[in-house]
Amino acid sequence: MIVVMEPGASEEQIKHMTDRVHQLGLKAHVIRGTERTVIAAVGDERTTKPADLETGPGVAEVLPILAPYKVASRELKPEPTQIQVLNFKAGAGAIGVIAGPCSVESEEQIIACARAVKAAGGTALRGGAFKPRTSPYSFQGMKEDGLKLLAAAREETGLAVVTEVMGTESVDLVAKYSDVLQIGARNMQNYRLLEAVGNTDRAILLKRGASATMEEFLLAAEYILNEGNQNVMLCERGIRTFENHTRFTLPLASVTYLHRKTHLPVIIDPSHGTGHAYMVPDMCVAAVAAGADGLIIEMHPNPEKAMSDGYQSLDFKQFDDTMRRCARVAAAVDKHLC
Amino acid sequence: MIVVMEPGASEEQIKHMTDRVHQLGLKAHVIRGTERTVIAAVGDERTTKPADLETGPGVAEVLPILAPYKVASRELKPEPTQIQVLNFKAGAGAIGVIAGPCSVESEEQIIACARAVKAAGGTALRGGAFKPRTSPYSFQGMKEDGLKLLAAAREETGLAVVTEVMGTESVDLVAKYSDVLQIGARNMQNYRLLEAVGNTDRAILLKRGASATMEEFLLAAEYILNEGNQNVMLCERGIRTFENHTRFTLPLASVTYLHRKTHLPVIIDPSHGTGHAYMVPDMCVAAVAAGADGLIIEMHPNPEKAMSDGYQSLDFKQFDDTMRRCARVAAAVDKHLC
Amino acid sequence: MIVVMEPGASEEQIKHMTDRVHQLGLKAHVIRGTERTVIAAVGDERTTKPADLETGPGVAEVLPILAPYKVASRELKPEPTQIQVLNFKAGAGAIGVIAGPCSVESEEQIIACARAVKAAGGTALRGGAFKPRTSPYSFQGMKEDGLKLLAAAREETGLAVVTEVMGTESVDLVAKYSDVLQIGARNMQNYRLLEAVGNTDRAILLKRGASATMEEFLLAAEYILNEGNQNVMLCERGIRTFENHTRFTLPLASVTYLHRKTHLPVIIDPSHGTGHAYMVPDMCVAAVAAGADGLIIEMHPNPEKAMSDGYQSLDFKQFDDTMRRCARVAAAVDKHLC
Amino acid sequence: MIVVMEPGASEEQIKHMTDRVHQLGLKAHVIRGTERTVIAAVGDERTTKPADLETGPGVAEVLPILAPYKVASRELKPEPTQIQVLNFKAGAGAIGVIAGPCSVESEEQIIACARAVKAAGGTALRGGAFKPRTSPYSFQGMKEDGLKLLAAAREETGLAVVTEVMGTESVDLVAKYSDVLQIGARNMQNYRLLEAVGNTDRAILLKRGASATMEEFLLAAEYILNEGNQNVMLCERGIRTFENHTRFTLPLASVTYLHRKTHLPVIIDPSHGTGHAYMVPDMCVAAVAAGADGLIIEMHPNPEKAMSDGYQSLDFKQFDDTMRRCARVAAAVDKHLC
Repeated sequence: MIVVMEPGASEEQIKHMTDRVHQLGLKAHVIRGTERTVIAAVGDERTTKPADLETGPGVAEVLPILAPYKVASRELKPEPTQIQVLNFKAGAGAIGVIAGPCSVESEEQIIACARAVKAAGGTALRGGAFKPRTSPYSFQGMKEDGLKLLAAAREETGLAVVTEVMGTESVDLVAKYSDVLQIGARNMQNYRLLEAVGNTDRAILLKRGASATMEEFLLAAEYILNEGNQNVMLCERGIRTFENHTRFTLPLASVTYLHRKTHLPVIIDPSHGTGHAYMVPDMCVAAVAAGADGLIIEMHPNPEKAMSDGYQSLDFKQFDDTMRRCARVAAAVDKHLC
Repeated sequence: MIVVMEPGASEEQIKHMTDRVHQLGLKAHVIRGTERTVIAAVGDERTTKPADLETGPGVAEVLPILAPYKVASRELKPEPTQIQVLNFKAGAGAIGVIAGPCSVESEEQIIACARAVKAAGGTALRGGAFKPRTSPYSFQGMKEDGLKLLAAAREETGLAVVTEVMGTESVDLVAKYSDVLQIGARNMQNYRLLEAVGNTDRAILLKRGASATMEEFLLAAEYILNEGNQNVMLCERGIRTFENHTRFTLPLASVTYLHRKTHLPVIIDPSHGTGHAYMVPDMCVAAVAAGADGLIIEMHPNPEKAMSDGYQSLDFKQFDDTMRRCARVAAAVDKHLC
Repeated sequence: MIVVMEPGASEEQIKHMTDRVHQLGLKAHVIRGTERTVIAAVGDERTTKPADLETGPGVAEVLPILAPYKVASRELKPEPTQIQVLNFKAGAGAIGVIAGPCSVESEEQIIACARAVKAAGGTALRGGAFKPRTSPYSFQGMKEDGLKLLAAAREETGLAVVTEVMGTESVDLVAKYSDVLQIGARNMQNYRLLEAVGNTDRAILLKRGASATMEEFLLAAEYILNEGNQNVMLCERGIRTFENHTRFTLPLASVTYLHRKTHLPVIIDPSHGTGHAYMVPDMCVAAVAAGADGLIIEMHPNPEKAMSDGYQSLDFKQFDDTMRRCARVAAAVDKHLC
Repeated sequence: MIVVMEPGASEEQIKHMTDRVHQLGLKAHVIRGTERTVIAAVGDERTTKPADLETGPGVAEVLPILAPYKVASRELKPEPTQIQVLNFKAGAGAIGVIAGPCSVESEEQIIACARAVKAAGGTALRGGAFKPRTSPYSFQGMKEDGLKLLAAAREETGLAVVTEVMGTESVDLVAKYSDVLQIGARNMQNYRLLEAVGNTDRAILLKRGASATMEEFLLAAEYILNEGNQNVMLCERGIRTFENHTRFTLPLASVTYLHRKTHLPVIIDPSHGTGHAYMVPDMCVAAVAAGADGLIIEMHPNPEKAMSDGYQSLDFKQFDDTMRRCARVAAAVDKHLC
């Protein structure tokens, strides 16, 4: 860390702060400039935080140097991680396609979706059984019955099942029926839940919180990795900004940034990332071009009748067309869908 | 809801949409303008969502009319709710002061804080025993030992104890030792947790998520109220914006807005809302002037040595000075601290 | 517009508001719901604003229906506009490539850039002669000398010249030497300047303000179109959000949205949109895949020595590689660079 | 500046960067940590920018230390500046009250407003003659006729006249009739205009851009100060965030921050800062409590009939009540309105 002192900081204050730096187990280098003195605090910054020094006397500002995450870091593991579950693969050249309805609604619906996903070349089926809904008066999901239907769809098609787990109390139940546990955006910093899924042997799809910084996102992944589960996929699903013509703002530069900082695969969710079905196909191909390692897409046999999120769901024909467009662009960037 | 059709929408499309509106249990009024047709869908909007109509053929946009929350609404209960716990009161003219350290660190520390809070006129003690930390490598709180110390501090001073509960598995434990259960900003949409605290008889301090809209915030409160617990306080603690000279951006207009929309008391957290101790006193007095029903303030015997959040904690002298300033301003707006 | 009355609104208030609607030259349809009354105000909404009715007695909210822009609207002109200047084309299948340094620095530099742009397949040269700099102490551009060098580069290579005009006082001067007048993001709502360039016969590249809504962006274009100049290109260059690992957040969904709302071509600026050279190539190909009608890219013979924006500029080799990647992706979406 | 090298940076890269630092006229201190090397670049940072070093080989990040503004800085002038124009005073204990309609509409209207402002204890009259309107189809102001009416109102009441200047071409004209030139939020980075008003002898009210950082805001002030005009007031009028229940988000902590960084007075605009008349009184008193040096408030004889911004304008009675509330709170913080 770099401790920037105020212009008129006294020698006593500088001494006080170098002592504090030493107490934190770091080495202090004092650099005297023409206008200010700065103290470089060198060592393992991760055990402390810039904020720990910020209240010191005569301190103007404290600047961090090291990123606080470790296991997720590309510095620790330079080569990209590929996650593989059944036929689904994400990372290292493979673009994994996850698709399905927002909510599991019936056997007929989920089986139809699974067949459409498989026919278009997808390898994983999404579908919510436990639904986090903004209003307590909205449909909350089919719960265990929904999980059973997802498992039946896997039986039928061989697709991997991706579904959300909302609380620690249902981790075992959800893990029993599914292949990939999804942590929703609202739960990205539900640390007890992160620890709980970190103790399963399922792959994890961790969605970015709507206002999480990249550092917070990677530290949330770190909570899971730190429990021993290394099969974590990061999912960019849009951030909250002043834009109101999209549900969230989808920053595709996250792919490039995360590829530089972490070895974990990066999945894009253009459905939540835009909130409008008509925008989803363009953002799918853009994500593939940008280098995403996977896509998670909402689709439904009849979006207008969907019990949730119909407005951002593709129908089967739109989904199939989108997959064709994605396959062409994937080839143009020397990658393939799977 | 108002369904706005596209300029060239066909009669068939308009018919389709009025049928859909009827299927949702609403009445449809068709209004034909010079450029477009709009369909007003009248009835109990809360059972549906604008999005349910958005994917219909020829639909340009759907605009909601009714707010989706009920029990929290001022329309349902026009008079303001006052929450009272021991000597702490918030709402209807009373400005409840909650203060204490970010984390409970030791008996000495928490007792010293409690005495300082009481001496300055506060009526509730905050202190974290279970700490939601961005990094898994940071101090995670003293857990049950911390809760016991909080209870001891209440014994000593009579202050109500406010502390965070992070997961469903610890609701009973935290409720056993404390008077007010705090739901942190990261857990504002942890619906299982909201339901769980809604089934306790403790008062709840619900913090606004860093990117939650007011509607999402009130619907989170609705999850608690809907379980039968009516003792909910709403806490504005700042939102995430592009500003980088404050940790979050503290919008005091939230007080005025919430007072118009809901009967629940509104508490301001200027510590998290700014992230800098030097800004806290001004924002405390501003919150009081704006009409806040309470304050929750981080303070510490020695902020520089705090195990967490020292940079935004007041020391005892600063806290005492701030309380004096607040008391004068409270009197100037015909209210009182308690 | 839809005027939503408060739940307890009186008959007198409803009467008052229907009268107000009539005074604004609109027709009023009163719809009485179970909980509220709403008044639909039908007619040419563009001459008024929702806000004009918002202060009325008993009014809870006013919702607009029509978009306030006209000439820019796809409703007025359904087919996409293609802008052509020398060999540069943008729109209707053509992806126009504009590239060059942030600032014109010397004849050698600008000629070298122009040759590199042409060699890689670009058709327009960007380069700042009048530079809007955040600090008054930064390099402010070569001014008319810079314009002359741009014209010389056009002479040499046949590339169209794109350069920024910062104030009404220099519109004639800049128009004399250049082919496309750029309005910078900071001046998107400098209405006198918009009117002035609307009175030239040059094509206009209008950059989106960092916090402009799409409606404000299209209305800024409308200021230019309204003066008679129909050659307007819209440039998405990133918005300001809480993200701090990119200079701005680049929302590629803007392309899809704008294509639905307006016939004007949409250009993407991945240099300002990310602020980091290493992110630019991925965002170029993603923009092409998303359907952008053009790219504007900062490049420099030696980015490390650039007088401005070197950190987001590609060197010639990086630029050339990026163009090759873009050409492959353009072909995969049945379009071509030019 | 602090140049943070990547973990595996080579000796050659470190040498390259220390050479670059020297070339920029700064001294380089190399600090070798356990995981990384950092180079502290010491000297007058204002002549360069962190970005100038960011593209160097092996560089991970560059962190600035010094603020880039000088004349506005509290380091240069520790005591607060008080601006005085006629009876209006802002700063150093005086809270200057500026009020009036959004637009000048008629002699009757502006004279009535001026009298109401004076009667309630205000000392300056605002009123737009040149109006920056989002849509080209909206009322654009009375222009010079409006200025004459403002001057007449000053004649009648002795209030100082505050009005916006939108372009360089009208600076002389506006300066002729007014006492304080307002730079609107949309023009905060219209540098030619900042320079032009910096060359007048009028006081300047500089509004913060809706997405300007504090550093950009202070550098915009610096453009004016740098031309020799030292009479600059900074006006916080709200920032653009994801909040949609207010027109902008009003961060009152800006007052505290700016008071720490600059000696210039800070004025709060609660009308634009909230966009709803019902929120304005609370935010006025909150601003006074927070330490603001002045208020600028929109009011109108009949807000419902206002030609612009009626929805955020107080009527005379509301304004008078608000002033009484402000006066009580001002006294409680040992300041006074004027």
